[in-house]
Amino acid sequence: MPDNNHGNHSDRINVKNISPAVIKRLPRYYRYLGDLLRNGVVRISSNELSNRMNVTASQFRQDLNNFGGFGQQGYGYNVEFLYHEMGRILGLEEKNNIIIIGAGNLGQALANNQEFDSNGFSIIGLFDVNPRLIGMTVRGVEVYDIDMLESFIRDHEVKIAALTLPKTKAPQVAERLVELGIRAIWNFAPVDLNLPEDIMIENVHLTDSIMTLSYRIHNQ
Amino acid sequence: MPDNNHGNHSDRINVKNISPAVIKRLPRYYRYLGDLLRNGVVRISSNELSNRMNVTASQFRQDLNNFGGFGQQGYGYNVEFLYHEMGRILGLEEKNNIIIIGAGNLGQALANNQEFDSNGFSIIGLFDVNPRLIGMTVRGVEVYDIDMLESFIRDHEVKIAALTLPKTKAPQVAERLVELGIRAIWNFAPVDLNLPEDIMIENVHLTDSIMTLSYRIHNQ
Repeated sequence: MPDNNHGNHSDRINVKNISPAVIKRLPRYYRYLGDLLRNGVVRISSNELSNRMNVTASQFRQDLNNFGGFGQQGYGYNVEFLYHEMGRILGLEEKNNIIIIGAGNLGQALANNQEFDSNGFSIIGLFDVNPRLIGMTVRGVEVYDIDMLESFIRDHEVKIAALTLPKTKAPQVAERLVELGIRAIWNFAPVDLNLPEDIMIENVHLTDSIMTLSYRIHNQ
Repeated sequence: MPDNNHGNHSDRINVKNISPAVIKRLPRYYRYLGDLLRNGVVRISSNELSNRMNVTASQFRQDLNNFGGFGQQGYGYNVEFLYHEMGRILGLEEKNNIIIIGAGNLGQALANNQEFDSNGFSIIGLFDVNPRLIGMTVRGVEVYDIDMLESFIRDHEVKIAALTLPKTKAPQVAERLVELGIRAIWNFAPVDLNLPEDIMIENVHLTDSIMTLSYRIHNQ
């Protein structure tokens, strides 16, 4: 199996056994810190920050303590420092190239999403089987024939493959991506992928999400 | 504030204090049961079902027990019965009309998603401010001028509003929707909405999701 050469960050903090619940909160923290930074806030108290983010100050402190802290008691947090530290923890200070398999509306929506760019993600190619889509560009990113996948992945450092495919196609394409060396899959197909344990999968199951909302409407 | 007339299901099970973790698993169970049903499976043992769904048999049984059970010890589950019971719990046996605010790629992707239709959701209108989009149709669903929101919501039973808007626009549009009587918001904007506590919000924060994956890549 080809080596994807993910590159080690020499000074990264050794983080292990951090609970998924903590990890899920980090992007929110990063998002709020980014907003504060853009609004010119230099320093903020733990209480004010946690109020804005709708978590308790103690939970926020505990979450940060998993990574070494970053605040001085009584002085609050330096927003810019904390923002960049959080970005480093999230791997956003490195280049994260993404390819999208499936160039329909959803694939195009992802390619058009400027939030990704401003957070260190680059969408570098879309792939499809549909001849009407192949050759077009979305915000300057080309839609390639899916037969080009192998050579494209060989020639580019691809960190993440997003799957915006029907559920009937997604499992076989995911297996092919893994064979080609992809280690991280962002799966939008409404199906659970059975891939080797070392492959990282993040599911966005839209139908599950809307059903959760429906449940709450009907059982409130 | 207008009454949205959600309609009470007279024989619905009285479910309270069910943990969000359980609720999150229900759509997956429903999805797997639907696949079994379409594959002609009539009856399945608790062990086989849980194996396929990648949960323990005891967790599955416990989750179901929150709603009254549905299996007979030693006989396994009747797939069709369990599928429909699960659908009823999720509110999918009633009509769930959705409107989408924001008819860009993401809004169109949602309108094009046939998974929603086959699970009892109907997208009945898209809304936008962009004159180039207003008047077009997506799978037969019209894109209306956002100024039509008020009369549209008055004339239709709308259960859910999906927000596929930039984060600068989403909060004010969400407040307007609540004023117009909408109780459930499916929010795709990368911002947390501050709405009254009785308003149900389900967030799909795509940037948070990709950051979680990035975290795992860089800290594996």
